[in-house]
Amino acid sequence: MNQKMSRRTMLGMTTLAGAAMAGSVASLVSAGGREPERAVFPWPYHTLDISRTREHAYQGYNKGGCMFGVFEAIAGPVAEKLGPPYSHFPFQMSSYGGGGVALWGTLCGTCNGAAMAIAMFHQGERRNQLINELFTWYETTKLPTFIPARPRRVPKTFKMPRSLAGSTLCHISITHWTQAAKKEAHSPERVERCGRMVADVAGFTVELLNRAALKTFKPTTQISPQAQACLSCHARGQQAPNEPEVVSRMQCQTCHPKAHE
Amino acid sequence: MNQKMSRRTMLGMTTLAGAAMAGSVASLVSAGGREPERAVFPWPYHTLDISRTREHAYQGYNKGGCMFGVFEAIAGPVAEKLGPPYSHFPFQMSSYGGGGVALWGTLCGTCNGAAMAIAMFHQGERRNQLINELFTWYETTKLPTFIPARPRRVPKTFKMPRSLAGSTLCHISITHWTQAAKKEAHSPERVERCGRMVADVAGFTVELLNRAALKTFKPTTQISPQAQACLSCHARGQQAPNEPEVVSRMQCQTCHPKAHE
Repeated sequence: MNQKMSRRTMLGMTTLAGAAMAGSVASLVSAGGREPERAVFPWPYHTLDISRTREHAYQGYNKGGCMFGVFEAIAGPVAEKLGPPYSHFPFQMSSYGGGGVALWGTLCGTCNGAAMAIAMFHQGERRNQLINELFTWYETTKLPTFIPARPRRVPKTFKMPRSLAGSTLCHISITHWTQAAKKEAHSPERVERCGRMVADVAGFTVELLNRAALKTFKPTTQISPQAQACLSCHARGQQAPNEPEVVSRMQCQTCHPKAHE
Repeated sequence: MNQKMSRRTMLGMTTLAGAAMAGSVASLVSAGGREPERAVFPWPYHTLDISRTREHAYQGYNKGGCMFGVFEAIAGPVAEKLGPPYSHFPFQMSSYGGGGVALWGTLCGTCNGAAMAIAMFHQGERRNQLINELFTWYETTKLPTFIPARPRRVPKTFKMPRSLAGSTLCHISITHWTQAAKKEAHSPERVERCGRMVADVAGFTVELLNRAALKTFKPTTQISPQAQACLSCHARGQQAPNEPEVVSRMQCQTCHPKAHE
């Protein structure tokens, strides 16, 4: 009877603790009851609404910067749908990528955050295909296009200039915009521009992730036509005599406008 | 008696489930028993052994690339010491940063992984100070210095050339090494070089994190002297007339050798 009672007690406990624990009662006991449920990886994806993502990302930029803004606007709502332990992921960690990582101006935080979000749901070749698609779009599309209902830093009548980044690097993307807009890099207009970039990049990333989930994603590009031309000699195994290999998929001419002159 | 029994059962359960759950028994029941323990953020740091970290990182490079190699060699062993749910963190997500993100040659994956590792333990100004210290060291130090006991891709007698990256960008760092070593970018020697960079960067990051934990970390640098000279006119609020602001902390002359000529 004591044994039976104890067994029932154990069963009741596992029902109550439910999915909060990994493994059997035996492994629970052996681990001293300290084993919480484990998320699967990569995470299962739930399709998201693109408009809502853009608005969420625009607001997120004000909370944790550009990388956080994109990453959390995608991974956050999916995690909410999945529940704990997914929703306990420390999304704030992604704020390190703001301003090209701690204002170093390296990789644009929106690209870093989008790549990290993609990596929560895809690994290997499919992950890289989605990143290729996103980064090439970022380099070759006049941005930003997002217009918030209530702009944060500029009057509602402000006509936001658009520019070609020509690069996935933060300080190049910003400088191209400041040249097009005739504004300084630390002006409120430029900060507003980056908030809208966050919305655009999160929205396009969700478009790609939704297509991948619905099996309608087909890779259309790996790199820009400009980089393709350079890499026809400089890529792995493609090198002509005396043409060194380069590990890059970025638009080469943005930083090397006079190559081969 | 039944009530007493049931109360004892509940108490037994909470003891067994212990730290695996957040909140009280009441909240457990109301959540249907699905609430796993929540990690605090930023994570508490445990000091790590630098030599062991370097070897761990060198091995990790072969499992998930350069960003994973650095990130997991730091966050992984700390998470092991902290136990679940920390040790359930999906470390593999950091593999997206390999080759400057999916081979795009942007931010060096060792720098991206180190910055992300730092961000697991520090936020705000202290996080950025540690990243500044690390990135400046990366730009201005002849690397790699790590010599593995059993090299993976080169004979043990191979004398690994060292080079100055002069940048935190992947393809620039690699090209400077290939020029110094007279090797191709996709040669086994270059892959080996990046594996040793992973060891070096993880080791130095742990040195910084250990110092921060022991309260002996003092920021010595924000940026390289070269960037400092440029930013004396081009940084926020520092601009001379007609000198535009630039959002960057990278060594400017690496990509702009003829500025102001």
